Amino acid sequence: MEAVIADLLPPLRAAPARLHDAMRYASLGGGKRVRPMLAFAAGLVTNAEAKRLEVVATALELIHAYSLVHDDLPCMDDDTLRRGKPTLHVEFDEATALLAGDALQSHAFGLLAEHRLADDPAVQLEMIRHFAQACGSRGMAGGQAIDLESVGKALSLPELENMHIHKTGALIRASVLLGARCGDPLAQADLDRLDRYAKCVGLAFQVVDDILDEESDSTTLGKTAGKDKEAGKPTYTSLMGIPGAKRFAGELLADAQAAIAPFGPRAGRLAELADFIVKRNR
Amino acid sequence: MEAVIADLLPPLRAAPARLHDAMRYASLGGGKRVRPMLAFAAGLVTNAEAKRLEVVATALELIHAYSLVHDDLPCMDDDTLRRGKPTLHVEFDEATALLAGDALQSHAFGLLAEHRLADDPAVQLEMIRHFAQACGSRGMAGGQAIDLESVGKALSLPELENMHIHKTGALIRASVLLGARCGDPLAQADLDRLDRYAKCVGLAFQVVDDILDEESDSTTLGKTAGKDKEAGKPTYTSLMGIPGAKRFAGELLADAQAAIAPFGPRAGRLAELADFIVKRNR
Repeated sequence: MEAVIADLLPPLRAAPARLHDAMRYASLGGGKRVRPMLAFAAGLVTNAEAKRLEVVATALELIHAYSLVHDDLPCMDDDTLRRGKPTLHVEFDEATALLAGDALQSHAFGLLAEHRLADDPAVQLEMIRHFAQACGSRGMAGGQAIDLESVGKALSLPELENMHIHKTGALIRASVLLGARCGDPLAQADLDRLDRYAKCVGLAFQVVDDILDEESDSTTLGKTAGKDKEAGKPTYTSLMGIPGAKRFAGELLADAQAAIAPFGPRAGRLAELADFIVKRNR
Repeated sequence: MEAVIADLLPPLRAAPARLHDAMRYASLGGGKRVRPMLAFAAGLVTNAEAKRLEVVATALELIHAYSLVHDDLPCMDDDTLRRGKPTLHVEFDEATALLAGDALQSHAFGLLAEHRLADDPAVQLEMIRHFAQACGSRGMAGGQAIDLESVGKALSLPELENMHIHKTGALIRASVLLGARCGDPLAQADLDRLDRYAKCVGLAFQVVDDILDEESDSTTLGKTAGKDKEAGKPTYTSLMGIPGAKRFAGELLADAQAAIAPFGPRAGRLAELADFIVKRNR
């Protein structure tokens, strides 16, 4: 993914060089690459070509990277450490971080429109539409807005879940769906199975994030630990306790595995990834 | 356009309501709607359906609106007045302004993928690719980065032109091109004519902006006048003087008109718009 993303970003020597440098700083050199892995794993279910999956995976990762850059800005989480490095606005400056995030989003859509992702261009348009919805006010950006409004508030469990379904869940679901749609057509029932898997994995990812934020330290995480708690943000651990959150993550994992069981060995990578997401330590 | 944009934005009652409210505040209730007018005028050249042009025009205007919101943020131009109203981050807050801009961009791409804009979906993908390029690091966002780097520097005329070709020119060219591509296919030579028109009009727009910024007052402009000069930003008037800038705008207007003359009466609206852009007083 590192080489693929580097190759699909605008070249560093192209003007404006500082902006392109910032876009690379934000998206290369780290990250768990969960969304690309999910797209590739879902692509195995439908025999999707690696070339197509690379484009989808890069677009997903650029959106994820831009969201982190904007999320770290002083007017949002005001964070200085990300993936063990200074955040973009610390390394460059705020204005450049703002613009690099904006340009990463444009570039992601450009990639999805430029490269062939489906045999039928009409299917590709549907994929872009789904991707846009996952990014926008009823997806990731909307989730960040809900997050903002919830600081210092006592959220119920369904409200917390609603926030995460938008903030991280939408893009994770798009990762699985777009990866699968790069290959052979699936029946709606099969798409629904993949979506249930993605929904469970997306939530589990967040539950585990909250657990790690409580139990781990900044060096292991590569970002400031304990920050959410300090900011008075509601978390799964604050609502359920650490043992309750761990039990919930286990239930989500089992639900995700059950959803994809009918695919058999084709979904082997998806099954492994669900395990990885729940059992990771950073 | 006001009604069209209102209709194509996410409904205000949908959650997250505050974000949707901010998206509406940024894109409704004002603006010259130059990009929509250009898209509609170009669509007349190719008999494009109004329904398609409405979608393209809205997407263009949402990108324009998001760029103004981000441009007005404290880390960029730090402006408090826009279209005679408080800027978005003043009326709401900085984080909401950041997210509303982000979500407007996603929504613009979503519209272009969701609605039918061309008989051939492959053409529609090309339109989205072009649109993405006009928005991104080698288009509008890139122009803003060049603008940032040029503050306080002595730019040459070609350097100033390069900045504006990116910052405002790219989206204006996309307006004309996408509008035209909603209709009957055009030969490459005709697309080149439209592009020459759009390039001249885009530059003329900026030259006139600089003249108005010197000669007009904040009430007429609906934004803070004299701000660029104060910020030490290079302008056409600082490089050419006011009479020189007016002469240059006149030359660009003549060049734009010459480019579309072969289309005859079909390009009547484009011709009128070029006049309007150069002769406007705000």
